[in-house]
Amino acid sequence: MSTHDVHRNPLSPTPRTTLTRSKERGATDRAALDAVLDAGLVCHLGVLLGGSPVALPTIYGRLGDTLYLHGSTGAGNLRAAIDTDISLTVTHVDGLVYARSAMHFSMNYRSAVIRGRAVLVTDEAERDNALRVIVEHAAPGAWDRVRPPNRKEMAATMVLALDLAEASVKMRSGGPNDDAGDIETGGVWAGVLPLRQVWGEPIPADNLEPGIDAPADVVARLTPVAVPVS
Amino acid sequence: MSTHDVHRNPLSPTPRTTLTRSKERGATDRAALDAVLDAGLVCHLGVLLGGSPVALPTIYGRLGDTLYLHGSTGAGNLRAAIDTDISLTVTHVDGLVYARSAMHFSMNYRSAVIRGRAVLVTDEAERDNALRVIVEHAAPGAWDRVRPPNRKEMAATMVLALDLAEASVKMRSGGPNDDAGDIETGGVWAGVLPLRQVWGEPIPADNLEPGIDAPADVVARLTPVAVPVS
Repeated sequence: MSTHDVHRNPLSPTPRTTLTRSKERGATDRAALDAVLDAGLVCHLGVLLGGSPVALPTIYGRLGDTLYLHGSTGAGNLRAAIDTDISLTVTHVDGLVYARSAMHFSMNYRSAVIRGRAVLVTDEAERDNALRVIVEHAAPGAWDRVRPPNRKEMAATMVLALDLAEASVKMRSGGPNDDAGDIETGGVWAGVLPLRQVWGEPIPADNLEPGIDAPADVVARLTPVAVPVS
Repeated sequence: MSTHDVHRNPLSPTPRTTLTRSKERGATDRAALDAVLDAGLVCHLGVLLGGSPVALPTIYGRLGDTLYLHGSTGAGNLRAAIDTDISLTVTHVDGLVYARSAMHFSMNYRSAVIRGRAVLVTDEAERDNALRVIVEHAAPGAWDRVRPPNRKEMAATMVLALDLAEASVKMRSGGPNDDAGDIETGGVWAGVLPLRQVWGEPIPADNLEPGIDAPADVVARLTPVAVPVS
């Protein structure tokens, strides 16, 4: 039995994911959760190392109610996560909020925090599929045109799963929440400076043979994508 | 006495920050650390909540060897960090590395992880200055033209400090590290798709009075900035 089969109540507001501040920013909505997770490139894994909490950047993938992480079997940081409570956080910064007073400066953002017990995936079919999910998350459309992992590579790879049962989503959007007095006084610019991530032109590898163009899945990422209005 | 006065050996390679993988990516270099920290907008705070590690996005600022965090005195997440071991991680994703085989897909990134004991700052002058440092980190040049915090706002604000003594920096850049066999086989595009963050045009607040242009410190951010070549 794996613990990621236990919970099937998405976004259950357990006490420890109940937001203690800014409750109005909490959105217990599964579509919002999936959107934040699916738009991310890296997550931050919260894990106990030597008895202290550490946040480590890593790539990931989502399949339904399961998040997958992977790494080398020699990666102590990931080994430390097995069968322990961890967190997985994905954050997008959408803009900086300029206010009329210092204390009302803020960020527009979307963030998801998942908490739960990480389990080692041992089923070979699930492990294979998890690798596909992770690569396709980072590089949609690439899996089918590259060499898949061989037996030796898979033997050197650890796959961890985390259930999405306990999750919270926080977002902020819109302009500054200035005090009435500061608005009345006036004279200070206030607003939002939007921020977005942009892919640049593909850079072929030095050792790429001539005559191979960037494939459609790579070129497709260069198409401007609509971003949330901050 | 505050623990952030104890350590003065920047980037000391204590056992728990010694990298167990990819040692060649570890750069025990203070300038690199400062560059990663100073270029970030949010960090992820690693903190124990209810006995489990959680990574939470938050803004921060750096002054010399000290990182500052702030929040409402009612923010349980930040209160939980006081006088406990925490981590603070800043990550920049610079590009996605497309390889000829699934297992060699990677990210180009710069990441700094600071570990140490967070202390509550109680000195009023240091608290005032920390707020300035945090706002100037997020919005360089804005502090002097907005209303500073008043006594009531400062009373509702917690400031935490973390010493930079125990830190590690990891980076990856460049193209894919494909296997010789896959390079020889050929026929698969490989390279890097660079990623960068771009500020958009300032959006004035709905309640901004007419005739106030975006100030120079805001407009200055729109100037294209050189980014590391992935």
